[in-house]
Amino acid sequence: MNAYIISIGDELLIGQTINTNAAYIGERLSDNNITIKKVAAIADDEKAILDEFKIAYETCEIVLVSGGLGPTHDDITRTCVVKFFETELIENAEVLENIEMLFKKRNRKVTELNKAQALVPKISTPIMNPRGTAPGMWIDKDDKFFVVMPGVPYEMKGMMEDFVIPSLTESLKNSGIVIQRRILQTTGIPESTLAERLGNIDELLQGSQLAFLPSIGGVKLRITTQAKSEEEANSRLTEIEQKIRAKAGRFIFGKDNDSLETVVAKLLTERDLKIATAESCTGGLIADTLTNISGSSNYFERGIVSYSNASKVELLRVDEDAIAEHGAVSLEVAMQMAAGIKATSGSDIGIAVTGIMGPTGATTEKPVGLVYIGYCDDNVCTVKKFVFGNERLLNKQRTLYAALDMVRKQLLGISLDA
Amino acid sequence: MNAYIISIGDELLIGQTINTNAAYIGERLSDNNITIKKVAAIADDEKAILDEFKIAYETCEIVLVSGGLGPTHDDITRTCVVKFFETELIENAEVLENIEMLFKKRNRKVTELNKAQALVPKISTPIMNPRGTAPGMWIDKDDKFFVVMPGVPYEMKGMMEDFVIPSLTESLKNSGIVIQRRILQTTGIPESTLAERLGNIDELLQGSQLAFLPSIGGVKLRITTQAKSEEEANSRLTEIEQKIRAKAGRFIFGKDNDSLETVVAKLLTERDLKIATAESCTGGLIADTLTNISGSSNYFERGIVSYSNASKVELLRVDEDAIAEHGAVSLEVAMQMAAGIKATSGSDIGIAVTGIMGPTGATTEKPVGLVYIGYCDDNVCTVKKFVFGNERLLNKQRTLYAALDMVRKQLLGISLDA
Repeated sequence: MNAYIISIGDELLIGQTINTNAAYIGERLSDNNITIKKVAAIADDEKAILDEFKIAYETCEIVLVSGGLGPTHDDITRTCVVKFFETELIENAEVLENIEMLFKKRNRKVTELNKAQALVPKISTPIMNPRGTAPGMWIDKDDKFFVVMPGVPYEMKGMMEDFVIPSLTESLKNSGIVIQRRILQTTGIPESTLAERLGNIDELLQGSQLAFLPSIGGVKLRITTQAKSEEEANSRLTEIEQKIRAKAGRFIFGKDNDSLETVVAKLLTERDLKIATAESCTGGLIADTLTNISGSSNYFERGIVSYSNASKVELLRVDEDAIAEHGAVSLEVAMQMAAGIKATSGSDIGIAVTGIMGPTGATTEKPVGLVYIGYCDDNVCTVKKFVFGNERLLNKQRTLYAALDMVRKQLLGISLDA
Repeated sequence: MNAYIISIGDELLIGQTINTNAAYIGERLSDNNITIKKVAAIADDEKAILDEFKIAYETCEIVLVSGGLGPTHDDITRTCVVKFFETELIENAEVLENIEMLFKKRNRKVTELNKAQALVPKISTPIMNPRGTAPGMWIDKDDKFFVVMPGVPYEMKGMMEDFVIPSLTESLKNSGIVIQRRILQTTGIPESTLAERLGNIDELLQGSQLAFLPSIGGVKLRITTQAKSEEEANSRLTEIEQKIRAKAGRFIFGKDNDSLETVVAKLLTERDLKIATAESCTGGLIADTLTNISGSSNYFERGIVSYSNASKVELLRVDEDAIAEHGAVSLEVAMQMAAGIKATSGSDIGIAVTGIMGPTGATTEKPVGLVYIGYCDDNVCTVKKFVFGNERLLNKQRTLYAALDMVRKQLLGISLDA
């Protein structure tokens, strides 16, 4: 079964609202093995809405509409539903009761505008809305489902969970095909190099699908497979995962919704290790990210943002002569910073970064994007050099992920070489 | 002129990626008086892409496509462009040079997959991409513009700003009506309180429009007006701005694209002041944000992320007894942290935060969301108490903006009281 998602609202077109509703609906449908063919966002405009209803109803078995159900003059979705299905509005007693109860709860008098929201298209089953005044509409016609929900995210989500998803899955029970997905999260390897490592994709996949999803933190590999049962699908996914791991395992830091920081946090917590950070170029981003996780005080001891040379010397015991001789952005200073933060904090691990984030600060020998990352624990002190790009904020992000991945690799005994 | 935005990528349909690209493109087009008719998100599927190209090209004068330009097998947008316009691929020397340069800079060998990205449709002018390997495409045919960009947000944004928006506005110059917008950025006041302060909106606006755009950092006020000339529009905007400033001036920290950190950075730089940060609950977020701006070493001296009590005592000279008596999250400790970071760093301003970000850590007396922010300069030391919400990451953000706004207000001599 194919689905078509229609989001209605001027604010979506002019970018004032980001279409998170469509992402949510898409995720919940694909969780339930429904393929989404298209997401369309259109204006609160009768012709645009009716045209889109037509395309959607002609091409897909499931149409999910959200937005334009409010009580004011610019909300015209319900009128369009009536026109599209050539039906009429009738008052629904249960919906009216819900509206009156909501107003009573808020100690307000029901307005005529809100009372009119109890009028629903005759062809539809109203979807009750305990979170707001606009009911949804469930239309089951011509072996197709046409569903209309409010645009307010938490009202829409409530209807999806309480009514739409259960009703759709009930109707789809006997299709016999299961779609399963698995994501492998990689970092420290560019998309094209990863693709080359994986070699012949068709041979690897044997009919399943693989998508490369690049972001600043790394490339996600999403494997999708169809089978007759969940077991069969999962065993195929595991087989493909094993083949990928054999070819690029050390770049894979996690699965599905893992983030690099949660993986590192878990490793530190499990081994009862404390980490401390000494950051120059990232300005506190590594400490900030490590403390985004609840319970971070179990593994994060302290951080120093040693922006000035004085702070490197005073707080991290960096040798003034080393700065004078090699510069603050150098292998030597990164090493001393890492050793210094470990020693002064009494932590198990010290991680340090120094670099040139740009756009200014480059010299003839040291380009924008040059970064040294130092790592020290009880057994080893090491520094790795990176050259990233020209964009300051992206360079901070890239340095963050490279530093976290260095901790991950050291803890797991994975070589730091690319 | 009407525009149609097409976003290509399976990840958009299954909700793995939220379509922020379309919101960005929509905002930038409507800023430039271009009406967006539709946003469509579709799969990496040849038939779906060609069908959508057809609808878009038939109904709108401007078609903006993003996504599916990567080097791997699942990226098929370029192939679809070639088929749709019945053209062919030819190698572009300038694009190839850019790709080779990017790889050289990163000390990597150019792969064949990446080299192939220098092949561009003959009908198009390539849009150079200094941020990545995939060039964009600009096609000007049948009095229509068909533009294709990568899906990686910062690459797409770079092309929009450097090439697409300037090229489109140049083509649209002579329409006769000017729409101008101005944004006033506020912080530290809720949307409803701000609305009450502004009073009768119709009287204030006299036919212009005002939108309240709330976000974590504060509420943006966007004023929009139409006029026959830029001068007329601007003089109306200025009149409305003055009325708003008279009613809520001290909550307005900037205009248009100003951010609170750039405003604070500018104030510090102009006055030749150095700041240092002592952060507990924000974990480095304030230092990170202050150092997102190029040239931050002119005003940012150092930061301490004093997560453990030991680090507060050792690095910030906080009295152990004060922690024992009042707790680490207390007015007394915030004050000592601010005084300590100012003194130990030798900076002109010390700012310190301590709080409970949640979800754990609350006590009967101290709820999740409780934050103390301390500020010290040569003349004054002060602490302000806040109680934010339950969400850890939002609490970190709210603390950040409250701390930056405290610095802004102190520097401008604005009272800290709400």
